[in-house]
Amino acid sequence: MHQQLVLGKITEILAATDDSHEAELTQLLDKSSRIFVSGAGRSGLIARFFVMRLMHAGYEAYLVGEVVTPSVRDSDMLLVISGSGGTEQLIAFANRAKKIGAQVVLISAKRDSALGDIADAVFEIGKPDLYGTVVGMPMGTVFELSTLIFLEALISHFIHEKGIPEEQMKARHANLE
Amino acid sequence: MHQQLVLGKITEILAATDDSHEAELTQLLDKSSRIFVSGAGRSGLIARFFVMRLMHAGYEAYLVGEVVTPSVRDSDMLLVISGSGGTEQLIAFANRAKKIGAQVVLISAKRDSALGDIADAVFEIGKPDLYGTVVGMPMGTVFELSTLIFLEALISHFIHEKGIPEEQMKARHANLE
Amino acid sequence: MHQQLVLGKITEILAATDDSHEAELTQLLDKSSRIFVSGAGRSGLIARFFVMRLMHAGYEAYLVGEVVTPSVRDSDMLLVISGSGGTEQLIAFANRAKKIGAQVVLISAKRDSALGDIADAVFEIGKPDLYGTVVGMPMGTVFELSTLIFLEALISHFIHEKGIPEEQMKARHANLE
Amino acid sequence: MHQQLVLGKITEILAATDDSHEAELTQLLDKSSRIFVSGAGRSGLIARFFVMRLMHAGYEAYLVGEVVTPSVRDSDMLLVISGSGGTEQLIAFANRAKKIGAQVVLISAKRDSALGDIADAVFEIGKPDLYGTVVGMPMGTVFELSTLIFLEALISHFIHEKGIPEEQMKARHANLE
Repeated sequence: MHQQLVLGKITEILAATDDSHEAELTQLLDKSSRIFVSGAGRSGLIARFFVMRLMHAGYEAYLVGEVVTPSVRDSDMLLVISGSGGTEQLIAFANRAKKIGAQVVLISAKRDSALGDIADAVFEIGKPDLYGTVVGMPMGTVFELSTLIFLEALISHFIHEKGIPEEQMKARHANLE
Repeated sequence: MHQQLVLGKITEILAATDDSHEAELTQLLDKSSRIFVSGAGRSGLIARFFVMRLMHAGYEAYLVGEVVTPSVRDSDMLLVISGSGGTEQLIAFANRAKKIGAQVVLISAKRDSALGDIADAVFEIGKPDLYGTVVGMPMGTVFELSTLIFLEALISHFIHEKGIPEEQMKARHANLE
Repeated sequence: MHQQLVLGKITEILAATDDSHEAELTQLLDKSSRIFVSGAGRSGLIARFFVMRLMHAGYEAYLVGEVVTPSVRDSDMLLVISGSGGTEQLIAFANRAKKIGAQVVLISAKRDSALGDIADAVFEIGKPDLYGTVVGMPMGTVFELSTLIFLEALISHFIHEKGIPEEQMKARHANLE
Repeated sequence: MHQQLVLGKITEILAATDDSHEAELTQLLDKSSRIFVSGAGRSGLIARFFVMRLMHAGYEAYLVGEVVTPSVRDSDMLLVISGSGGTEQLIAFANRAKKIGAQVVLISAKRDSALGDIADAVFEIGKPDLYGTVVGMPMGTVFELSTLIFLEALISHFIHEKGIPEEQMKARHANLE
């Protein structure tokens, strides 16, 4: 069954992901004044999923490229999601953030990459040798879904750790649509 | 020449637009805690143009539907841009904003419409009888371009009125892209 | 561990989802000339994930609201993703699609709803009594993630069933970013 | 009055824009299999305005970055809108399009720039010495509004030249929203 294939692969990747990532990434997020998130293509959709919940959880968070996204300052974090670590436009964003003095954090399928070289911290999802071709999960699918579940679990971690009531998150949620 | 056709039609519409709109709309914007802007299709693009400059000018402004747009509260304004005043999804947004107690302001090609009935204030751009078919400016083009120039001139009005330095606006402008 | 909480809940929901959904939804997609996908908020992000892979897999597919999305015709399908089945703007879209004569298909957490009443076919993800509050998976999270994995598995189903080579999908994938 | 300031400046820029641009750009668009349009920030909004009308006028046109935008091929055009001609992410797109063999066309405030060096054709809007600071039209406003009106007039040019009936454009226009 295809659902088992997909869930099985995500489970395998997350089992090979360092358990300390959750606490470490939370700590970095908590130290930043504001959090700017960016990704290209489907990694950009993951960025959107995450940044919305960051806002619900009380962080001041922005998606790079939306119309009211303000300028980055040196006390902010740029969180970049890139499986390959080599997306050109994200490299340009990361270099600019770095020059401003902001912290650059990368979530990637591998530690070593152009973005990895720029980033102050890299969170590797799974291990590079687990990303071989999987028929039915084309292109970046394995990284994308694993990263999404990793970040949704991080939100769950926040909620439990900080005791954020669902009502409080709901009250921050867009209420016109 | 087509540029003259387009500029001529915009000029005609703006000449028929009430001069007091600029000061009145500025006053309403200044009284609101936060400003939420919405429009569908090309009016949605105008909403994006405007909300970005509102942010640059120091207002707390959001586009309805972006991922970090928060919930509307009773001290906020929903500014809706709709030529026809009858866009169903905008009616749904306006009704919800009204129920929350927020102020609903409409920018439209006509005073009377479903959205006009809901709105606390309507700013009519031009006069309804000026919106006849113009070959080369199909569908809502005349309203859209006139409204865009109206709102860009409103930004110019803020800047002169309040003496906002361009450097301050630039400092708020997105700096990664 | 939070990752286990999230993966466990998705697994539970998918185990309670009708196995025949995969084949039935594929058949409906294959019968439609073109597929228009829509959702609000995070369900809108799931719509984006899915529509991109539909395009890669060779379907003519569009997201409602993007700038080059054309008009719907009677031979097309509108696929709506809505946990509650009650999102007002989606009801407006579904009613309009229905009037045009297009097929309306709903993916939802429950069979009975305003959108369910309009839809020609409803695909229920899980069972309504499985959607109680889960601390750490706030608001629609359980439905959203389960539906995303359901649709990613559907893509896997296409790929295996039709023997679509990954190279072919890659060749259709955006190549500027 | 601010509306006169804004309209006056646009008129001045367009008067200084080469009259042959309209026919030349139309010819290039007509020779391309498909047209991909891109811009950053507010120039990205202008790209959206234009690409929607290209679609209405019967061109196969896409915005770079939307979820169903396909891969560029050597018979396609990438049309880039950039006032400065130096936006890094657009340079990356243009280089990639060039390598694929697609035609790269730039609309800019100046002929000489990094993007100008890559482009096969550059359409200069106004003359560089007309872009001095205008209080009330901050940052790229003068270029953006002038370019928007230039492109809307280009659409008007198509419509007249080719005798495209408004009903035909309306029939292609998104009909769910």
